Amino acid sequence: MISRLIRRISETGAPICVGLDPMLTHIPEFILSRAYEEKGETLEGAAEAVWQFNRAIVDAVADLVPCVKPQLAMYEQFGVPGLAVYQRTVQYCRAKGLIVIADGKRGDIGSTSAAYAAAHLGSVQIGKSSCAAFDSDMLTVNPYLGSDGIKPFVDACNAFDRGIFVLVKTSNPSSGEFQDRLIDGKPLYWRVAEKVVEWGRSSMDGEWSNVGAVVGATYPEMIGELRGLMPHTFFLIPGYGAQGGRAEDLKDAFDRDGIGAVVNSSRGIIAAWKKDTYARFGTEHFADASRAAVLAMKEDLAKVC
Amino acid sequence: MISRLIRRISETGAPICVGLDPMLTHIPEFILSRAYEEKGETLEGAAEAVWQFNRAIVDAVADLVPCVKPQLAMYEQFGVPGLAVYQRTVQYCRAKGLIVIADGKRGDIGSTSAAYAAAHLGSVQIGKSSCAAFDSDMLTVNPYLGSDGIKPFVDACNAFDRGIFVLVKTSNPSSGEFQDRLIDGKPLYWRVAEKVVEWGRSSMDGEWSNVGAVVGATYPEMIGELRGLMPHTFFLIPGYGAQGGRAEDLKDAFDRDGIGAVVNSSRGIIAAWKKDTYARFGTEHFADASRAAVLAMKEDLAKVC
Repeated sequence: MISRLIRRISETGAPICVGLDPMLTHIPEFILSRAYEEKGETLEGAAEAVWQFNRAIVDAVADLVPCVKPQLAMYEQFGVPGLAVYQRTVQYCRAKGLIVIADGKRGDIGSTSAAYAAAHLGSVQIGKSSCAAFDSDMLTVNPYLGSDGIKPFVDACNAFDRGIFVLVKTSNPSSGEFQDRLIDGKPLYWRVAEKVVEWGRSSMDGEWSNVGAVVGATYPEMIGELRGLMPHTFFLIPGYGAQGGRAEDLKDAFDRDGIGAVVNSSRGIIAAWKKDTYARFGTEHFADASRAAVLAMKEDLAKVC
Repeated sequence: MISRLIRRISETGAPICVGLDPMLTHIPEFILSRAYEEKGETLEGAAEAVWQFNRAIVDAVADLVPCVKPQLAMYEQFGVPGLAVYQRTVQYCRAKGLIVIADGKRGDIGSTSAAYAAAHLGSVQIGKSSCAAFDSDMLTVNPYLGSDGIKPFVDACNAFDRGIFVLVKTSNPSSGEFQDRLIDGKPLYWRVAEKVVEWGRSSMDGEWSNVGAVVGATYPEMIGELRGLMPHTFFLIPGYGAQGGRAEDLKDAFDRDGIGAVVNSSRGIIAAWKKDTYARFGTEHFADASRAAVLAMKEDLAKVC
């Protein structure tokens, strides 16, 4: 799996992931009102607006980037209609050649993680049929339960040629509350990183492992430290842009060839139309603003990789 | 919220949670084949089987127990049809007076946790309407991202009179890999427990907090330790029965009045029909086997609370 992501990064020249996290406040009023008119101010109406919004953004950026990262919570909040649109978004993106990273931060005891892995990375056996549910390429997972909660995901990576990103150091302000606490002289995130390296050895795909790590752009000093510890672990880096992470903070994530990480931006791209910088596009052309924001991000990142 | 759970526990005399984690292997063949005949060996067919199975179990045990805990992964693996049946199960259980604990182990950065809280514990604003998506009473959450990932759930507890259980010490074999590592002389699960106490102070409901803790039955020595540290934190205890936890291991979770925890059993109850002990009921009467298993568990737990 990871070699496919790396190839798409090379082809596009953009180690960029577009975060498809459509909060209703990111969606232009004309889309919302059209969806509400058709389906009411209901979960169905909201889901329809999300779909119209997503499709336009994806159409505008698909040729520029290797991957997208829909945040499952943003669809789950709209219930069953929301998850139907999540599924439709995954299918639409994959049909356009985009790699889809499901941001679910799932994780549980072994048998339950196996069900999550089947839901998002593999398929489930129903009688004599093998059926895929959400069928994304990669999934973010939470390490708090340890190896037996992660192993089913790694097994799915191997069985279905998929990938995972394990939360190591997250981008949020209080991530240090537990992640930075010292265990035998090293922070918890370091101990998790050691395990990610171990888990990753059983799912190598060339130089890199299908078991990647989430490392926040907001803690640049840790990026270099973790790159040293995890030379074959691909990074998914959230927190660029809206959360405060800057390109120059990310240089240590990449190797000499500019490979090693994909940087996510959600609001900064999908809600670009709301920023003064892109006001010239007008609300109707919100997706063009997203395209311009991707191009600007590509230029910005070119400084460091 | 938590006072409602405690009241229902007192009324039923059973600090028991029935884990509605319907793997297809738990479902009798006659239900599966009927569902596949109607809807095919598809996600829809599997979801239909799960629904028929759940409904029978719920009908058989609803008067005996205060709560149920559907495991979201088991529905998510069947995609959109699976989640529609999850929602239907939640509604069916609540209509029968059962408290529903959604076992999702969700957790993310602040704005995303807010979306999960809206999805499962609250509602989302769509135009002028307030719409609830999955609408359960309580939700399990993962603490790895720290306070700002938990606060939106606590806010939802206060706004909508709901509850959460934060993972402290999980029941799986490798839970100690990170959770037991020492930080300033105390294990990580202890450090998480300290935070759970802190978070819980802002959502008290009588003597107990709406912010509870998940503490596995499989690590009995830690239950007493955590009870001492967290005197006002209600425990959700997984791992009883099939995972190896025994009633006598749980006595420290309860106070003098037998209050303080709800013990979950999933396989042990919903797949009771597969055990020799309950073979007398026959496959057709699988739900009666579940009822008998609940009664046996109630008797077993009566020794300690």
